Formats: sequence, C-alpha cells, structure tokens
Amino acid sequence: MVDGRLSLNQKTTDRIGVAEAVSVCADAGLGWIGLWRDPVATFGLRESADAVMASGLRVSSLCRGGFFPADNEEQFEANIADNLEALQEAVTLGTDVVVLVCGGIAGGDLDRSRRQVVEGLARIVPRASELGVRLAIEPLHPVFAADRSVVVTMAQALDIAEEHPPEVVGVVVDTFHLWWDPEIWAQIRRAGSRIFSYQVCDYLDPLPDILLGRGMMGDGVIEFRRFTEAVVAAGYEGPIEVEIFNDEIWGRDASEVVAEMIERFDRLVI
Amino acid sequence: MVDGRLSLNQKTTDRIGVAEAVSVCADAGLGWIGLWRDPVATFGLRESADAVMASGLRVSSLCRGGFFPADNEEQFEANIADNLEALQEAVTLGTDVVVLVCGGIAGGDLDRSRRQVVEGLARIVPRASELGVRLAIEPLHPVFAADRSVVVTMAQALDIAEEHPPEVVGVVVDTFHLWWDPEIWAQIRRAGSRIFSYQVCDYLDPLPDILLGRGMMGDGVIEFRRFTEAVVAAGYEGPIEVEIFNDEIWGRDASEVVAEMIERFDRLVI
Repeated sequence: MVDGRLSLNQKTTDRIGVAEAVSVCADAGLGWIGLWRDPVATFGLRESADAVMASGLRVSSLCRGGFFPADNEEQFEANIADNLEALQEAVTLGTDVVVLVCGGIAGGDLDRSRRQVVEGLARIVPRASELGVRLAIEPLHPVFAADRSVVVTMAQALDIAEEHPPEVVGVVVDTFHLWWDPEIWAQIRRAGSRIFSYQVCDYLDPLPDILLGRGMMGDGVIEFRRFTEAVVAAGYEGPIEVEIFNDEIWGRDASEVVAEMIERFDRLVI
Repeated sequence: MVDGRLSLNQKTTDRIGVAEAVSVCADAGLGWIGLWRDPVATFGLRESADAVMASGLRVSSLCRGGFFPADNEEQFEANIADNLEALQEAVTLGTDVVVLVCGGIAGGDLDRSRRQVVEGLARIVPRASELGVRLAIEPLHPVFAADRSVVVTMAQALDIAEEHPPEVVGVVVDTFHLWWDPEIWAQIRRAGSRIFSYQVCDYLDPLPDILLGRGMMGDGVIEFRRFTEAVVAAGYEGPIEVEIFNDEIWGRDASEVVAEMIERFDRLVI
C-alpha cells in the first residue's frame, strides 16, 4: 500500500511525457503527480488535465511560475503575463499550488533582481487569490543564485511571503535546496501554515553535476525523516513530492524508478 | 604602483611552488603573499619562511587549519594535533592569521560535525592566543557543506567566533562563498573587528566546475567594490587576497595571471 502522501514530480522521469508518467503513477498505486508546464504544453493542457482526471490521480503542484527578473520593462511585463498564464493552467489541471522558481540575476544587478521578485509576486497575487491558486516560493540552493533563483534561503522566502495573506503566498520546502542551512529548523517552524509544498531528493557527495546530479533518497547526505517531522510539526498535511534532477535516473525505466522511489520513501522519508 | 593591500593567495598560481610564487609576487611589486600548507611543506617550512623574508614580502595568511569533524575520537584528536601544528607553522612563516576551513560532514552526522567544529576550535584557541595567532573561520559556499565546510554562512561563523575573544577568533570574508547571502551586508557590519581576512574571486555564471570553476574578478556576477566598501566600513584595514581555484588560470603563465590580477584589482575591487 503506497503512502497516500507520496507524489511523483514528473521531473524525476524527465524523458517520458505526461501521459506515460500519469500511467506509471497510476499503475504504481500513487495518489498524486506533480506536473511541469513544458511537458504539459507538449502533450496539450486539456489533454493533460483529462489524462490525470481519467487516472484518478490528483496534481500536487504545477512547476513553475516565477523567473521574474528582467533587464527591461517589456521583458518584466512578459514575465508577469507568463505567470498569470501559469495560474490559469493550474486551475485547468486541478491543482491549487503553483511553484515559483523566482529567477536569477538579470542585467547583472542582484539587488534589482531581488526587488523584481518582490514586485512581480505582488503583481500576480490578486489573480491567484481570485482563482484560489496558492503561490509557493521555492528558495533554491545558493549554487543557483546567479542563474535560477535569487531567493536562496527559507528566511528570505518567508520575508517575501509574509507581505501577503497566508492562504495565498507560501513556500516550498525542498530538502536538496535547504539541508545545509543552520537556520532551517527554526525557519520551518516559522513557515507554519505557509508550507504549500514539500519536495524531497538527496544531495550527493561529491555532487556529480550542479543541475543534474541530485540523488534518490538514501544516496546522499540528507536526513529526510527529520525534515518530514519538521514540516509535519509545522502543520503540513499535503502531498510529498519526489523531484530528482539526475541524468542517470532519467536514463532508467520509469516504472523501475518509481518502484525504487516508493521503497526509499517508505524506508527513509516517512 | 601596486596597491599595498593586494596579496596573491598562492592557490591562484597552484601549479608553481612557493619559491616561484614568491618571486613572481616580488617581481610584480606586491607586498603580500597568502600561503598554503601543502606547498610550504613541499618546499620546506624553514625554506619557505626564508624565501618570503628574503623577498621582502609579508605572509597575509596561512591556509588552512580546520577540518575538525571526525567519525571517531582518534581521528578527532589527530585533527586537533594537526591544527596545533598549523599554528606553529604560521609563527615560523611570520603570519598571525590561520584560515580555518572547518571541514565537511563526518560519519553522516551533520549536527555532530557542527558540534565538533565548535569543540575543535575551543581546543586550539588557548594555544593560538599564546602564540599570538588569530584564527579566521571561513564560511564556505553551501555547495561545499557536505565535503569541505559545515560552516556555510557568515552568521553561523560569527555565532561560533563570538564565544571567543575578538582578538583571537574571527572570520574570513570571501566573496565567492558569501555573495549570494541576503544577510551578508548586515553580517559584515556585525563582524566588525573580527574580520581577519578578506579574499576575493568571482562567481562565474554558469559555474564551469564546482571546485575549480572560480573566476578572475570581472568575469562573473560579484559586485566587488560593494564588498570592499563593506569590509572597510566594518573596520578592516588588512591585506586583500586574490584566491582563485580555476583550472584554466592555473594553466597560464603565473606572471601573466598576476599582471591581470593587479589590473582587475585596481579597476574592480578597490
């Protein structure tokens, strides 16, 4: 019996499409799948929603909005428009969580890029609120501060989130990105009901690749049970996504990967 | 005229020995060199001290002590002994700063490893104090949290340092390791007179390699002048080391690298 909280984030099986990922999840007895916008667009938004619906799965989150920083006004507006689209897609897919990877440094200006994240978020909050979609800011590991997310700690993400209502703006707790932070346990307590998503994957040592060297739980240094206990103690009761960027895992049979994921999840995460 | 604060950390010219590095620095008109224990041991401790003395250079720091975490008591004691040796070497080399790279996770236990850093440091403080050697904790970029330093932020380093007298235990401000931290400016102010060393090198985007992909100032995303102003405003008046781990730079002629370093330093750092 698969734990009812376990969700496959489809990034873990990056080389197969939405239809196949949905069917692998359903066959394995999972209750949830986390989707990414690119493969959803490839398969078709409506088609993706229908496939999920037909399978009985629910969508734990949609990745990703964000990428707010821009080095000109036109690009910034285009980024906002893209985020608004992501909200609508989430509604169609039947999920109320959009993960925000906030974006890296634009135009060589870290401070302005950080301000643009704050401004960009504020621009999409009203629409998210109308649609009943929750915005989950994902602090990324500082190794991605230049190119993917100028938001790099839970404290920083919460500082941004707390300017908005707790039912609309929250955070993602992703073990890979946060395990190193001496403040993480205090910040998870602080996050409380603002934890909108909990994602797990391991940090390999040595790290084989900056982007594609993440590990299956148990293959690296992260103490997952401690993370799970912390987010549960903070009040989180939602799905737990396994999201692994790893070239070797992507090369394997998806059903096999999901079977291994279930075993590791039961043994190490919950 | 080369700025009197500029120091070549010999890691920037990793493929030449102490004697050659000293002579390259002296020829270029530098006032300082930062030494590493391995090449010093290779050339000889006494010989290294003599070469520096004869050149008229001063040694800005000795890298590195630290690496406290161990998965057994015997190894922990060996680590302490090694640190005590480093202090003595610093005295022989005529520098009063030993840089502490505190060490990664030992035995799979992050919390214990962090406690061992605190304990190990406390063990060597009395001897450092007797010898007049200052211990500079270097918070490393979180990408090295597993394998090189469980101390990853300036706040964490200062929490540890502040248990000891400000004339004995302080920190290294290294731009590569710290630029991403939203709290860095506040923490540099907090550090004040505990800044014992200031090291610069750039963060390339994309990062070509986790360990050996650091950049010459100007080739990446870091705003050096802002860092320099912050450490100077905090009261730091010591040497500024250029320390670059970069395989491509290591392959070049050392005199050429030092000439470029001087030009970039004048234009971008001070």
